[in-house]
Amino acid sequence: MAGYRAPLKDIQFLLQEVFGAQALFASMPETGEVNNELISAVVQEAAKITEGLLAPINQGGDQQGCQFENGLVTTPAGFKEAYAAYTQGGWPGLTGSVDYGGQGMPKMLSAIIEEMAFAANSSFALYTILTTGASLSLSLHGSEELKRTYLPRMYEGAWSGSMCLTEPQAGTDLGMIRTRAVPSADGSYKLSGSKIFITGGEHDLTENIIHFVLAKLPDAPAGPRGISLFLVPKILVDAKGNITGESNNVQCGSIEHKMGIRASATCVMNFDEAQGFLVGELNHGLACMFTMMNYERLSMGLQGNGLAESSYQLAAQYAGERLQGRAPSGIQQEDKAADPILVHPDVRRMLLTMRANIVAGRALSLYAASKLDISRFHPDQNERDVAEQLVSLLIPVQKAYCSDRGFEACVMGQQVLGGHGYVVEWGLEQNVRDARIAQIYEGTNGVQALDLMGRKTVRSNGKLLQLLVQEMDEFTAANMNNDRLQQHLAIFEEARAGLLHCTTTVLSRALDNPDEIGAASYAYMELLGLVLYCFMWLRILTATSSSEPENGYPPDYVDGLVKVGEFFMHRLMPRAQSLAAEIEAGAETLMSLRAEQF
Amino acid sequence: MAGYRAPLKDIQFLLQEVFGAQALFASMPETGEVNNELISAVVQEAAKITEGLLAPINQGGDQQGCQFENGLVTTPAGFKEAYAAYTQGGWPGLTGSVDYGGQGMPKMLSAIIEEMAFAANSSFALYTILTTGASLSLSLHGSEELKRTYLPRMYEGAWSGSMCLTEPQAGTDLGMIRTRAVPSADGSYKLSGSKIFITGGEHDLTENIIHFVLAKLPDAPAGPRGISLFLVPKILVDAKGNITGESNNVQCGSIEHKMGIRASATCVMNFDEAQGFLVGELNHGLACMFTMMNYERLSMGLQGNGLAESSYQLAAQYAGERLQGRAPSGIQQEDKAADPILVHPDVRRMLLTMRANIVAGRALSLYAASKLDISRFHPDQNERDVAEQLVSLLIPVQKAYCSDRGFEACVMGQQVLGGHGYVVEWGLEQNVRDARIAQIYEGTNGVQALDLMGRKTVRSNGKLLQLLVQEMDEFTAANMNNDRLQQHLAIFEEARAGLLHCTTTVLSRALDNPDEIGAASYAYMELLGLVLYCFMWLRILTATSSSEPENGYPPDYVDGLVKVGEFFMHRLMPRAQSLAAEIEAGAETLMSLRAEQF
Repeated sequence: MAGYRAPLKDIQFLLQEVFGAQALFASMPETGEVNNELISAVVQEAAKITEGLLAPINQGGDQQGCQFENGLVTTPAGFKEAYAAYTQGGWPGLTGSVDYGGQGMPKMLSAIIEEMAFAANSSFALYTILTTGASLSLSLHGSEELKRTYLPRMYEGAWSGSMCLTEPQAGTDLGMIRTRAVPSADGSYKLSGSKIFITGGEHDLTENIIHFVLAKLPDAPAGPRGISLFLVPKILVDAKGNITGESNNVQCGSIEHKMGIRASATCVMNFDEAQGFLVGELNHGLACMFTMMNYERLSMGLQGNGLAESSYQLAAQYAGERLQGRAPSGIQQEDKAADPILVHPDVRRMLLTMRANIVAGRALSLYAASKLDISRFHPDQNERDVAEQLVSLLIPVQKAYCSDRGFEACVMGQQVLGGHGYVVEWGLEQNVRDARIAQIYEGTNGVQALDLMGRKTVRSNGKLLQLLVQEMDEFTAANMNNDRLQQHLAIFEEARAGLLHCTTTVLSRALDNPDEIGAASYAYMELLGLVLYCFMWLRILTATSSSEPENGYPPDYVDGLVKVGEFFMHRLMPRAQSLAAEIEAGAETLMSLRAEQF
Repeated sequence: MAGYRAPLKDIQFLLQEVFGAQALFASMPETGEVNNELISAVVQEAAKITEGLLAPINQGGDQQGCQFENGLVTTPAGFKEAYAAYTQGGWPGLTGSVDYGGQGMPKMLSAIIEEMAFAANSSFALYTILTTGASLSLSLHGSEELKRTYLPRMYEGAWSGSMCLTEPQAGTDLGMIRTRAVPSADGSYKLSGSKIFITGGEHDLTENIIHFVLAKLPDAPAGPRGISLFLVPKILVDAKGNITGESNNVQCGSIEHKMGIRASATCVMNFDEAQGFLVGELNHGLACMFTMMNYERLSMGLQGNGLAESSYQLAAQYAGERLQGRAPSGIQQEDKAADPILVHPDVRRMLLTMRANIVAGRALSLYAASKLDISRFHPDQNERDVAEQLVSLLIPVQKAYCSDRGFEACVMGQQVLGGHGYVVEWGLEQNVRDARIAQIYEGTNGVQALDLMGRKTVRSNGKLLQLLVQEMDEFTAANMNNDRLQQHLAIFEEARAGLLHCTTTVLSRALDNPDEIGAASYAYMELLGLVLYCFMWLRILTATSSSEPENGYPPDYVDGLVKVGEFFMHRLMPRAQSLAAEIEAGAETLMSLRAEQF
């Protein structure tokens, strides 16, 4: 089987034809230079690296896993070399602040590169994603001195980052953390405590690791309002930004044995009066994390989508080559002992479900990324504000829905291969195991759904959704006369009306009973996800009818996209009906059992 | 976390109150002695073995896996001892023919024991299931001499069985097998060829392994009508049924490295002029497998259900103990730092989805098993015929729908534990990996759906479904005045009407276009599965209102069942709407893409 190939046509079509990325970037001074040529060059270079450098060490990385001995983590064979090549290519600083050596590229561009990296090697991708997130927190909230000292080396990739949030007794509920930060005379802090599930907390890829640690001062208010954020280097750094060689009191206690992403070190980190530096204001640690979290969550949706793409490629190839049985409508390949299993409608159902959701998931991720870019780069304050509100609505859906559909696609890809899908050597089962984590970390998908339904919808009284609906209205108004879109618009409008009806129902019920929020949340996230995928397909289908021949997309490719879109509309949209009915069912049947009856 | 506990109350309630097993068995001479006391004694003894013997070696078995060296397979630590204790308990011959040393117990009883065994240790269970299936084939189709020679030792558990069907180029399409059987002068055959994916093809648990091998005579007709079934012992056996010590020419070439069931040896088996004995008639090998396949497929559904039960127990316990956040409706445990996560509606949604499907899946499996028993034991030929037809309709649904829901439940259980669900030590991720195979082997679930839609529905012109509908009608007619059932009956009737409408649609479309069968098949299997689960819940809810206090079910338990049933009706039944719409969508969007467009 051929290895992973970056889906360059899909990527270019979405960026150029669907989202008009060049025009968007041109409208914002800081991204003005990012034109189609540059986009194309960067994406093609990223394709080379992910296909040629990361994919080849993916399976070996899974089989070998990370090794832990005497507090040190050894990554699998080839990871060090690949990481060195990756930093040499200048990738770690791609979206970094230009004031400290970053390249200031938009998230739309790096998002698609993240999808490729997760597709090719999710474990490897994690080492890089965490550094990007950590340096973003620092660049947004750190003091000038901290930024000057740490950011350049992080953008170079010489130092990596880790986010130390979770503790054994505090997972989703960060208000319960116990790690203490005691002020020192020199303005720094001494941190003591234990953190778990720390991705890349320890490894052998970089000369230093910069931990971003949530902790509480001894006199801090109880709960989430007493949490502060600290920068804690593994090796202490001097004022010029060079490592001193002196170790800080941070130790990796062990690494987890996990279902997947086995080449990514998931560490227990012990802090024993480790020197740390405050990032942002005291007791505002959670707020400092929020912006970063939107970027990290986007990455998890991209992980699901990337692994789905990898599985799709393997499954589609297998289905085209595996000869078993004959086509129901009559023999297709007289000269062969059997027809390829791709002739079977049910095999096509699996492949088309995968592909329809992958394309829509990629589009939704780029759509959310474009809002992140507008919220960061747009010269107009109002545009920035609207985009930021849309980000806060879109990200929990993108994270949860793309990672759910991604896992589902990996499972389907495995199914296409039958028994071979269950066997290690074919790679499909590793994708399933690797994709599973994206539904769990950075806030489980249930927590994303609760965030969407509670904080983002009920607490805003539906205002954020109204902003999205407005974007949808503008689109449908502009395309209502497109003949080829009529049937699809009707399907979209019906689902959207169902969504709005459900929203009203939950808003009204939640007034009397707060349990109605959690009772509706998951199905609501799925319904909004489905409606958003439908919105994305509408935009893609519109672009297929407007794409100019000189843009170079083969008619056969464009025709294929149209057919996948039609499949999505007719086969996957019916789900909206039952999701609406589940939402309407309300909280009663969930809450009527006493704890002992479970 | 406490280990697996056999769900004895659920089991007894289903057997006694829902299916009236004692009365059913009493109506058939060969099972007349199987009364409630005996059922209870056997089930409790099975609970002891699965909880105390099989569950404790499950995780170690996964971590150690089977080892392969020089053609020999070593099972993980503890498996040999457990297998010895299992055979000493007399379990291998539980359902075996009494004429050859078996105990002749009904499948309803052994089915529930299989569920327990799969829940406690799926890898271990497989060694036993395969022997049961192989000895069943032999008892139904073998010559008197073969039965006398082999069955007693297989029922004792001294010899195990394997089913050798698949070849590298012939998986689903068995017509393509190449293994040859050449007649010898003494009436036996020399078999040569290579088989893959052979569960328990080689291991160290028994002194002999009896392979049941599909092969073709040199002059056999092409395709599936030229396939014969042969018995091929690993060690040759003399006329008195004792091993001679002389090895047959059968060698294990390697074992697969798999996603899960790692303690179950999945073997490549090479036959090199191995001596074999014909079972059944020449060229009727597939027919000889059919009866056995119904039993094996039932087991795969039970595997899904058993692992779901195991995951449910762990997840429910975790949700009751893990303290994070506060109940949306107000603090529940003032004295604790947080409330258990079971207070959250969305955590309950996951647990209730798991439990509602587990109970219904267990009921459906018992329902199908009762039809197997009637088809085998009932004195009335007509009753046997009807039951056999129902078996042929029910089994593909039970296999596919129970294993799909089982896998889904294992994934949900993992989700309840968040990050801990992804870590090996908690056991949830192993359940996911072990449950995944049930959707694939013994015919992928897509193949089951195609069997249901094509052979069982379209080819019978809906006749088999009519038999099932008749059973449903009898039930609803008898309970239409049950006040507590009114709302549920209405939900059931609506879904059933939708199913019948879809059936008519597909029957009519398939006349013109054979692709319509495969285009509808998967959603149709899911819709029939959902309607059957609903039928099972109707029966359970009816039993809860008629259960006598002296039967000893605590009111709290019965009340809990009612509430789970209500959850099922209101939260899970809406799916029927969208499944019907998917079926109605037809073949066009699936078939319009050319192969190159995938």
